[in-house]
Amino acid sequence: MPKTIKKVGVLTSGGDSPGMNAAIRSVVRTCAYHNIECIGIYRGYQGMIEGDFKEMGPRSVNNIVNKGGTILKSARSLEFKTSEGRKKAHENLTKAGIDALVVIGGDGTFTGGLLFNTEFNFPVMGIPGTIDNDIFGTSHTLGYDTALNTVVDVIDKIRDTASSHNRLFFVEVMGRDAGHIALNAGIGAGAEEILIPEENLGLDRLLESLQKSKASGKSSSIVVIAEGDKIGKNVFELKDYVEANLPEYDVRVSVLGHMQRGGSPSCFDRVLASRLGVKAVESLLEGKSNYMVGLQNDKVALTPLEQAIKGKTMIDRELLRVSDIMST
Amino acid sequence: MPKTIKKVGVLTSGGDSPGMNAAIRSVVRTCAYHNIECIGIYRGYQGMIEGDFKEMGPRSVNNIVNKGGTILKSARSLEFKTSEGRKKAHENLTKAGIDALVVIGGDGTFTGGLLFNTEFNFPVMGIPGTIDNDIFGTSHTLGYDTALNTVVDVIDKIRDTASSHNRLFFVEVMGRDAGHIALNAGIGAGAEEILIPEENLGLDRLLESLQKSKASGKSSSIVVIAEGDKIGKNVFELKDYVEANLPEYDVRVSVLGHMQRGGSPSCFDRVLASRLGVKAVESLLEGKSNYMVGLQNDKVALTPLEQAIKGKTMIDRELLRVSDIMST
Amino acid sequence: MPKTIKKVGVLTSGGDSPGMNAAIRSVVRTCAYHNIECIGIYRGYQGMIEGDFKEMGPRSVNNIVNKGGTILKSARSLEFKTSEGRKKAHENLTKAGIDALVVIGGDGTFTGGLLFNTEFNFPVMGIPGTIDNDIFGTSHTLGYDTALNTVVDVIDKIRDTASSHNRLFFVEVMGRDAGHIALNAGIGAGAEEILIPEENLGLDRLLESLQKSKASGKSSSIVVIAEGDKIGKNVFELKDYVEANLPEYDVRVSVLGHMQRGGSPSCFDRVLASRLGVKAVESLLEGKSNYMVGLQNDKVALTPLEQAIKGKTMIDRELLRVSDIMST
Amino acid sequence: MPKTIKKVGVLTSGGDSPGMNAAIRSVVRTCAYHNIECIGIYRGYQGMIEGDFKEMGPRSVNNIVNKGGTILKSARSLEFKTSEGRKKAHENLTKAGIDALVVIGGDGTFTGGLLFNTEFNFPVMGIPGTIDNDIFGTSHTLGYDTALNTVVDVIDKIRDTASSHNRLFFVEVMGRDAGHIALNAGIGAGAEEILIPEENLGLDRLLESLQKSKASGKSSSIVVIAEGDKIGKNVFELKDYVEANLPEYDVRVSVLGHMQRGGSPSCFDRVLASRLGVKAVESLLEGKSNYMVGLQNDKVALTPLEQAIKGKTMIDRELLRVSDIMST
Repeated sequence: MPKTIKKVGVLTSGGDSPGMNAAIRSVVRTCAYHNIECIGIYRGYQGMIEGDFKEMGPRSVNNIVNKGGTILKSARSLEFKTSEGRKKAHENLTKAGIDALVVIGGDGTFTGGLLFNTEFNFPVMGIPGTIDNDIFGTSHTLGYDTALNTVVDVIDKIRDTASSHNRLFFVEVMGRDAGHIALNAGIGAGAEEILIPEENLGLDRLLESLQKSKASGKSSSIVVIAEGDKIGKNVFELKDYVEANLPEYDVRVSVLGHMQRGGSPSCFDRVLASRLGVKAVESLLEGKSNYMVGLQNDKVALTPLEQAIKGKTMIDRELLRVSDIMST
Repeated sequence: MPKTIKKVGVLTSGGDSPGMNAAIRSVVRTCAYHNIECIGIYRGYQGMIEGDFKEMGPRSVNNIVNKGGTILKSARSLEFKTSEGRKKAHENLTKAGIDALVVIGGDGTFTGGLLFNTEFNFPVMGIPGTIDNDIFGTSHTLGYDTALNTVVDVIDKIRDTASSHNRLFFVEVMGRDAGHIALNAGIGAGAEEILIPEENLGLDRLLESLQKSKASGKSSSIVVIAEGDKIGKNVFELKDYVEANLPEYDVRVSVLGHMQRGGSPSCFDRVLASRLGVKAVESLLEGKSNYMVGLQNDKVALTPLEQAIKGKTMIDRELLRVSDIMST
Repeated sequence: MPKTIKKVGVLTSGGDSPGMNAAIRSVVRTCAYHNIECIGIYRGYQGMIEGDFKEMGPRSVNNIVNKGGTILKSARSLEFKTSEGRKKAHENLTKAGIDALVVIGGDGTFTGGLLFNTEFNFPVMGIPGTIDNDIFGTSHTLGYDTALNTVVDVIDKIRDTASSHNRLFFVEVMGRDAGHIALNAGIGAGAEEILIPEENLGLDRLLESLQKSKASGKSSSIVVIAEGDKIGKNVFELKDYVEANLPEYDVRVSVLGHMQRGGSPSCFDRVLASRLGVKAVESLLEGKSNYMVGLQNDKVALTPLEQAIKGKTMIDRELLRVSDIMST
Repeated sequence: MPKTIKKVGVLTSGGDSPGMNAAIRSVVRTCAYHNIECIGIYRGYQGMIEGDFKEMGPRSVNNIVNKGGTILKSARSLEFKTSEGRKKAHENLTKAGIDALVVIGGDGTFTGGLLFNTEFNFPVMGIPGTIDNDIFGTSHTLGYDTALNTVVDVIDKIRDTASSHNRLFFVEVMGRDAGHIALNAGIGAGAEEILIPEENLGLDRLLESLQKSKASGKSSSIVVIAEGDKIGKNVFELKDYVEANLPEYDVRVSVLGHMQRGGSPSCFDRVLASRLGVKAVESLLEGKSNYMVGLQNDKVALTPLEQAIKGKTMIDRELLRVSDIMST
């Protein structure tokens, strides 16, 4: 029979994403709603090791639902990868009377949480927070929808100048291993071509597509490229390659970078964060552990952390086809 | 065996919503992709009656994926409600060689399309375009996600001034029959209480909730109210009622109105529009008719128009609970 | 010879406006830069009476430069209008060792500050913070530029739907006594006609202008109306009047309200706030008092508080002409 | 006595900037208001050479006041630098009956216009359109205010992630020869340090400032760097240098690039564009030529094109001091 949970610790770890604050707020208020205590742990697992804790009540999280970043800060912790570090962390939790953890982050965060659970039999629930949307067991990670809006908003601006000058722009977006941002934002921004890690379309196809675009009378083109695309050239090499092969094109490069991680979360991300925070705390109270809360078919659902880590989210191949048709 | 489709007409009808242009673009380009012609019909069914048509090729829809409103304009047509009007419309379509229709709009639009199909055996596909998200057979209508972002963005601004003055704000949002906008934007904006058409919480509960909020140390509160809420008072009467009963509150009212229908569509709405446009045209080409294309469990799916019209989308009652917990 | 200033109090009072937080930050950091102390006074003059003070160092104002509202809160104080209230306030300042005040707000705020100075010979500097831009001695008040951007952004959205339906919209914006917002945002948003408190164009001219607009082939029109326009009808009466006289028009009304006071300040307002805060504190350190810091010909300049209160800013009549020409 | 102007040509040239469309609209409508014709010339001087002209009436510029880019397109023309090219251009203007030109752009655009005037005694007026604000004779160029808002908006997002991770960000903004964007957006975004072309603060000062910032307890820092800063290292070399000398810092780089040129213009830029367009056309009608219309002390004013080209706008050194104080 599970121990009654009286005090929940919450932390954010790994790369931050919009919606993390809304998730923290949800965890804190759900605890208050159920009359249990909540402790904020600063700087992820590193703060757990250093005992960097703070009591949080419902008023501690006023006015953060719409703020980007994470008020609990995030950090990567090398020490937590050592058995000694985790032991120290466990001692701090015990000393503080914390019974259970909600960890908000990505794969690395969940791996740490799972290991911690295995070693100390400590209840852990995960909330997927990353803009990359590359976590198995949820159709949407926190921050992904916001990042898409940020990217299309920026590409809309770039298109103004691209259209005015009949230029070709290569826009690099985040996504080392996953093309979700590139594919969706590319369709949303009306990209001519989209290069993603999951699919190597090849350089020939890119050249062909750009030639066809020119011939069809388009005055400007945007190519959206994920960081981890498989074309074998970085975005600046690709520019040189295209300019060498299609001298009619004057290519400009824009690397969007970290702005994609910030900003006020979209309504979708705020609502999702609120739902996931409620489910995470209430699942702990029901005695569950080692699950990630996520969204499946528009409903909140649990996935074992182990599956969430090992599984792979696939891009929707229908979207590749839609992208093709849209660039007609 | 279905007649081969060679020319598709597309129109927007009823209240406009962000994403309609992206859907028009998708219909036009999907036609081009399949080497069939596409005709834009202006001002909805009224333009059909008046023969207000324009040929559209892939370049006619350049740079509209990110524009609010509808380049084909919208109108309500009394004449189309008469048998004579529809006959005239049918003659115009025949004269122009149009074989099939894609109609973008809400319930009224689909009702007109269905009637037209019944009378003339004319292939019709519907795309749900309305910010209210009140159409059966799709988890999201075009423009709904954008409207949610518009609303939370505005309420974020209102909260700045509410917090600075320790005030209570009543914010009225669209939704005569459906509380989707109020409920989701209310959670997203951190509303204290949310009043929707689907549920009469009663005035006592509202007063109680506001008293509790004051007691809990909150410095300001936002109540989000759908146009069609069931509390039996309009938003200004409600203000008077609350001020009479809770003299500690200085209530301000903000009616958001038509701004909710406009603006550049969110990435979600642009991608959804692109997907639905492809599916609508390709379904016609497969000989299908009388369906609405929509999103179900993140996949594009067909619903018979008749069901789309008669069915009722329910609010997710889980969200009512989340809202309650969040206002702790 | 002026007493050396060692501790400055800062407060915000009256209606809040975007840029107030940036001004507070500037006052606090300029004090720190000159090694003097700074005390935040909550809720304006009311907090002065209640002794609601807080020491502020440069880190107290981290991450507020971009936040709407005011972290010091604002309030209207009836008690401060009494001699007794002001005496209490003065005692609190003395007790706390505060030597000088920076007051951020509008006319009412400055009137209070001036009175306080007269009675207690207490050094006071004013910073103009109001969205209405109706303060003499500065070309721009804090928040005005942001409010203009908010208004045009909203009217852009309304125009989407106005254009789609060939409708006429009446948009009411803030400005009881001053037409700056209506006039500039009206030009910025491409309004057909603009009604302001400074000028009664008369109803005939409005009807004429709308008829001309229809005749010229415009598909939609926006009329921007300041709260305090002199046309003698409120916005809803005006709608009825126009519909009665121009039945070809279907008029919709949108009252923008308090959202205009909130939101993240524009770059202009942030820079202006930073400049004015520096000047306010350094002027106090130079022994000056009873001035408002403002912008004149793009330079920071001082205006005696008395003049700032009594003077009247005029609208730029060139803009009326520009508006006329633009609606051709 | 000047020839009566009956037909005005308008073009945009050089890098595009937000507000150019609003200026085109203003030129077109001012012509219509005065009952003279207006011809749009596509792709700047190159279109003049190629005779790429289009008649424009007041309805040709509907709904563009809020659009970024330029509907007339822009291009750089090598041919116009030859006497032969200019002769061809002049012949085209003559053939089309164009009497006078309004050219919208920067230094290069004005140089072309002045040369053309000298050779053919052709009336020319310039409107300053560039985001860099580096044109003598106007306090603001079209697009500058919008670019500032774009930059602070993006840096606000970057700060979210910088704060969450206690990181240092180097953000490169536009400005090869002018630090206006860097200086104002840097203050607006709360940058720790700002590097501009006009001033070489030296690497030592940068290191010192960053050390002081760390010591003062700041959790994150942003350094804003103009493209043309004089520190002698590009932004990536600078990162390496700082990381080598201040190992406590983990530096990230973000190069904002072309997004700064796009986007819907701010209200300020729309109003400015409207005013300048009116003045440009009406000055031509008064027989003036070879002037740039600009803003001086908030009033529209003329500057001889020659001075506009040769003069140099200085940064406001007060802002350097404000920046210093703000980073306390």
